[in-house]
Amino acid sequence: MTAPTLEDELARVAAREPDIGAWVIRHSDDELRRRVATLPQGPLHGLTLGVKDIIDTSDLGTERGSPIYAGRRTSADAACVALARAAGALVVGKTVTTEFAFLTAAGTANPHDVTRTPGGSSSGSAAAVADEMVRMAFGTQTVGSVIRPAAYCGVFGFKASHQLVPLAGVGALSPSLDTLGWFARDTADISAMLEALAPVTAAADDADPTRPLRIGKYRSHQWDHAAPEAVDALDQAAERLRAAGADVADVDPIVGLANAAEAATMLQMAESSRVLAWERQHHAELLSDLLRRVIESGSEISDDEYRAAQLIGAAARHDFDTAMTESGLDALLTPSAPGEAPAIKTTGDPVFCRVWTFLGAPAMHLPVGSGPNGLPVGAQLIGHRWRDRALVKVGQFAEGALAR
Amino acid sequence: MTAPTLEDELARVAAREPDIGAWVIRHSDDELRRRVATLPQGPLHGLTLGVKDIIDTSDLGTERGSPIYAGRRTSADAACVALARAAGALVVGKTVTTEFAFLTAAGTANPHDVTRTPGGSSSGSAAAVADEMVRMAFGTQTVGSVIRPAAYCGVFGFKASHQLVPLAGVGALSPSLDTLGWFARDTADISAMLEALAPVTAAADDADPTRPLRIGKYRSHQWDHAAPEAVDALDQAAERLRAAGADVADVDPIVGLANAAEAATMLQMAESSRVLAWERQHHAELLSDLLRRVIESGSEISDDEYRAAQLIGAAARHDFDTAMTESGLDALLTPSAPGEAPAIKTTGDPVFCRVWTFLGAPAMHLPVGSGPNGLPVGAQLIGHRWRDRALVKVGQFAEGALAR
Repeated sequence: MTAPTLEDELARVAAREPDIGAWVIRHSDDELRRRVATLPQGPLHGLTLGVKDIIDTSDLGTERGSPIYAGRRTSADAACVALARAAGALVVGKTVTTEFAFLTAAGTANPHDVTRTPGGSSSGSAAAVADEMVRMAFGTQTVGSVIRPAAYCGVFGFKASHQLVPLAGVGALSPSLDTLGWFARDTADISAMLEALAPVTAAADDADPTRPLRIGKYRSHQWDHAAPEAVDALDQAAERLRAAGADVADVDPIVGLANAAEAATMLQMAESSRVLAWERQHHAELLSDLLRRVIESGSEISDDEYRAAQLIGAAARHDFDTAMTESGLDALLTPSAPGEAPAIKTTGDPVFCRVWTFLGAPAMHLPVGSGPNGLPVGAQLIGHRWRDRALVKVGQFAEGALAR
Repeated sequence: MTAPTLEDELARVAAREPDIGAWVIRHSDDELRRRVATLPQGPLHGLTLGVKDIIDTSDLGTERGSPIYAGRRTSADAACVALARAAGALVVGKTVTTEFAFLTAAGTANPHDVTRTPGGSSSGSAAAVADEMVRMAFGTQTVGSVIRPAAYCGVFGFKASHQLVPLAGVGALSPSLDTLGWFARDTADISAMLEALAPVTAAADDADPTRPLRIGKYRSHQWDHAAPEAVDALDQAAERLRAAGADVADVDPIVGLANAAEAATMLQMAESSRVLAWERQHHAELLSDLLRRVIESGSEISDDEYRAAQLIGAAARHDFDTAMTESGLDALLTPSAPGEAPAIKTTGDPVFCRVWTFLGAPAMHLPVGSGPNGLPVGAQLIGHRWRDRALVKVGQFAEGALAR
């Protein structure tokens, strides 16, 4: 399968963008044709890139999904954009985000069914990659804003370990949780982006290539949210990984993660209410009702509750690290989303992503098959913290296993 | 002692700023006289505030101590500025920062001796508060950029727990470490700022007011960097706290912190090299030699080294939390700086601050006395993570004890 050319993508945008609504602003076609000829060499040479519109770009505005920032411009690129451009990527435009990367749907349609959501908050990025309008796209995840839209749109999605990839120049929502991620249609591109963004390790790969990968099938404390198609996707993925030679075993939920989801929500609400202090004070009337309510609730969270949530996070990370090390697992395999994409008026439920974001562990969504309505379903792999490159390798193995 | 009025401060700036160089830009005196009449009520009502020039303000530019950002403007206030203004503070201007809040000295003088540094990177903020040009000022600390200048300038300085106060709208250097802080001439002002920035706790104060405060005198793994005046200041502070009724005991260095300083440096260099990707690519010639060298070294740190540093941090935090809880200590008392402020060509050594920033624990500098050259010396209190309000209370007790 040949990758679409820039001309293919431009034609695709012309034909499909009126129905999908993935883009806030793009360079003109002629400008892109000019730029593609002079890109630097590097792991992303010539790859087109969409950038979620909470991420600053020096040559295109960044409006953060809010009328408060209509027309906002910055002189500098966000660090991740600078790194991607230096590796040869062609930034084609800014993709639709929900308001401040939170929950209020922004109207982007799922390319597989325009009555459905592509997920959020990285809505335009997931939709544009799925619809072959662009090769790759940046997103961010504070709760489930990369892995969930990747699942709903049927593309690969990668959320890096917390703090591994800098968020300088990226609008914040909850800094203890905010993390960069990206979307692609194969794991080679996922890997190339990691190469561009994170330092090349000089250390030898410590994995024995003849040892079978060990993967834990992990139903999680959120299991009762899984629809039948999510259960099937997890089973299928486990089966095909096993058939390809991996050692796949059921793993019980890690005890220390039982309270993690609730603590993550507390933390996110408390931090968002302070992060958006200026917007709330000066432009409250331009915030969505949903966001305004969350900010109000968040501002009532006490010091003690905030501290308790942070300490639950620290303990959960310790228990997760210990469980991963002691079990000798390379990755966990767990649901990405409750099921197929729901109707377009919401962005779906991040219930299966929240805990992993809180832990700061790397995550990769794998498209597996389709559900009862023919829409994409899949599962995610969770890796050891700050072993992002090792998780990408597991993902590459899984891509091969699932393609058989 | 009556606090200086706005007119006193304006006269002070007119008289002293040519020698001190604390300010990048200020509102005009007339503009400040107009604004002071219409400030909102709140815990900071009428207090003048300087803002370190890496922190965005809607009404004054933010140049980050670098010619790369000369003339940079933003439409919004950083979250901390919005919160301070809503609490009644009067932002008077932007204070000098070292280049991107790193080490390269920016020329601000120490008000106690203009041949000496006020410390960095929050150089102008510490100097302006010490010199009574302004009531309070914001700084940030990635290694030792609040506590060290507070020590050199002889004012109170407070560094909040990591993530407690949002850094939205604040230029990043190393996000795993970057933390907001502030300077004041008494602990009542330190407390009022915390009130403005962090949510009011509804929970009852769990400290028994009749129980003596328990304070651990902590020499730290960095003890051999302490000059005689720093040793004396620590001894004096311990003695006066004891005389005022506190239970002060020597505490051995926490074993898990032995490797923390080295790991913190590794983390900071790796993160800074990525955070400043755009600046390095597009304006390398406008970076100082020192910063350029650090960025180059940081870009050679491998994944494995970065991961190891993060895991050392996680383990150190766990050991610190455990030690603080099991010992029943309210705070540690430990050096802030090696001694008096050195000559103005450097910003001094953050050696006594690095580990605490890495841990994310709250810290407060206490002025104690003066050294052999008559310059300020002191010590810092370190609190339990995210018990910032409790640490401020210990600081208030200490202020009283030291004033006797």
